[in-house]
Amino acid sequence: MAVFTPVSIDEAKGFLAGYDLGEVVELTPIAEGVENTNYRLETANGRFVLTLFEGRTDEASLPFCLGLTAHLAARGFPCPTPIEDRAGAWLGRLNGRAAAVIEWKTGAWLRHPSEADQAAAGAVLARLHQTAAGFEIQRENPVGPAMWRRLADRCAAGASGEDRVLLDQVEAALARLGDVFGADLPGGPIHADYFPDNILFEGGQVSAVIDFYFGCNGAFAYDLAIALSAWGFDAEGRAMPGAIAAFQRGYESVRPLSDAERAALPRLGEAAALRFTLTRLHDRIFHDPSKLVTPKDPAVFLRRLEHWRAVETA
Amino acid sequence: MAVFTPVSIDEAKGFLAGYDLGEVVELTPIAEGVENTNYRLETANGRFVLTLFEGRTDEASLPFCLGLTAHLAARGFPCPTPIEDRAGAWLGRLNGRAAAVIEWKTGAWLRHPSEADQAAAGAVLARLHQTAAGFEIQRENPVGPAMWRRLADRCAAGASGEDRVLLDQVEAALARLGDVFGADLPGGPIHADYFPDNILFEGGQVSAVIDFYFGCNGAFAYDLAIALSAWGFDAEGRAMPGAIAAFQRGYESVRPLSDAERAALPRLGEAAALRFTLTRLHDRIFHDPSKLVTPKDPAVFLRRLEHWRAVETA
Repeated sequence: MAVFTPVSIDEAKGFLAGYDLGEVVELTPIAEGVENTNYRLETANGRFVLTLFEGRTDEASLPFCLGLTAHLAARGFPCPTPIEDRAGAWLGRLNGRAAAVIEWKTGAWLRHPSEADQAAAGAVLARLHQTAAGFEIQRENPVGPAMWRRLADRCAAGASGEDRVLLDQVEAALARLGDVFGADLPGGPIHADYFPDNILFEGGQVSAVIDFYFGCNGAFAYDLAIALSAWGFDAEGRAMPGAIAAFQRGYESVRPLSDAERAALPRLGEAAALRFTLTRLHDRIFHDPSKLVTPKDPAVFLRRLEHWRAVETA
Repeated sequence: MAVFTPVSIDEAKGFLAGYDLGEVVELTPIAEGVENTNYRLETANGRFVLTLFEGRTDEASLPFCLGLTAHLAARGFPCPTPIEDRAGAWLGRLNGRAAAVIEWKTGAWLRHPSEADQAAAGAVLARLHQTAAGFEIQRENPVGPAMWRRLADRCAAGASGEDRVLLDQVEAALARLGDVFGADLPGGPIHADYFPDNILFEGGQVSAVIDFYFGCNGAFAYDLAIALSAWGFDAEGRAMPGAIAAFQRGYESVRPLSDAERAALPRLGEAAALRFTLTRLHDRIFHDPSKLVTPKDPAVFLRRLEHWRAVETA
């Protein structure tokens, strides 16, 4: 579950005294999510999300992440806007954490998206790229190649057995891949975590894209490669060609790829596979058994590497 | 109906090319409202309202009106926020009119609000006053005493029969009332048109306050007096004491009135009754029969004057 920092209703009331949200009616922990603490907050003004940012979310990144969602929402893009306190600020402190109140968006994420859903999700990702264009704040990818190196070195200190085998494969792929982001591809603000559980649907349409806390500047095609790696593979990491094609078709219906982007996509897919394999491997090796979050299997993400490599060499 | 300026789907597409709302799917006239032209707009990003501002809405007022809703929505108050175009502007031009795209809010206005609904609407009006506090732009009331004088003089030139009788009553009341806004009461941005058809409900709660185009700076108690005059009387203009009490109780549950405000309320109620009687009388006398909007009966609003006067002298 995703309450790492408990908040009592009285603590929430104290924090929300700085906001114009009216009386706090109810505070309910939200089970989903593995990075930050989230509560569903009912006030006299309606329903909101109260988020406390936990260790992995760098506070310095929050003006980018919250600002990007505010920029997108102000332009009609379906994502929750952060709520301003009386001083016009999005961020406060609660129980030792940076904390924010976020608009509540209705909808549910899809466990089994159809190809039409895949195409809709792809189109919305392309619109995200287009709509984010004028956003001014910059943020380097917090899980870029420098962090991959750090994660791999940390893993090396603790890996054994199956983890060691995986790490060796990761190291070999890293060495082979080289400087994957060297090409001068079109880019701007990207979501960088466009997984199905961050895309809410309602009535067959995307009602909200949530969780921009890995958002950063990067190549649009890398964001697409991450998304294809998230949406286009089954639970065992096997490619679902129909899903991949539908998602990419939806994306390109809004923003067609250039030849350079299309050529770069398989290698960017390998990079995406490595990035998520590495964070999952690290989380499994250094998992705190007192935490109730179950580590995700890194092997199913590494399997995506084979798919992208096959596409690349085809 | 409320389409004074027709917009074709191609004209809408041309206008919306300046926005990041994705493909325009559908454009449907909205029948409600009597001041501006409104279309329901479906795009790839969801549902919106496309508003063209007609003659009575002074374009110079729009930065106040749109800015106030954006200020309120950013602080979690339930009202639709205006959507920014690619340049970050809320206003453009379409078919010779100032035009804006506004967030779509779900809900419906209540023909027969219960006392619980009255109290909820009152509480939300008080929150509007509290949440608007930090808003910086100023706008004088466009339908204040100077405009009452102009409207009455214009009516005098065209009134006959029943209208003439009404106008004489209005003139007598204006003379008796004197400078109703002289007292130094607490104030700030007010809605100034807080009628039931501008308050949407969903699931027993206020889901949105809409139509801030009469919004201006003024005394909070005058806004309450307008709202009580709108919510607390039946179709014939007879006071419904239970409704008035419930609305005011809701308002004061959030923002208790000062003694000075409570003392001023009946005279402000008379002012509200005069204000709406005058605009309705003017609209009826100078009604363009080619317009499909049916003028509202001014007499039922003048009847409210008697109620407020009875309260005042009690």
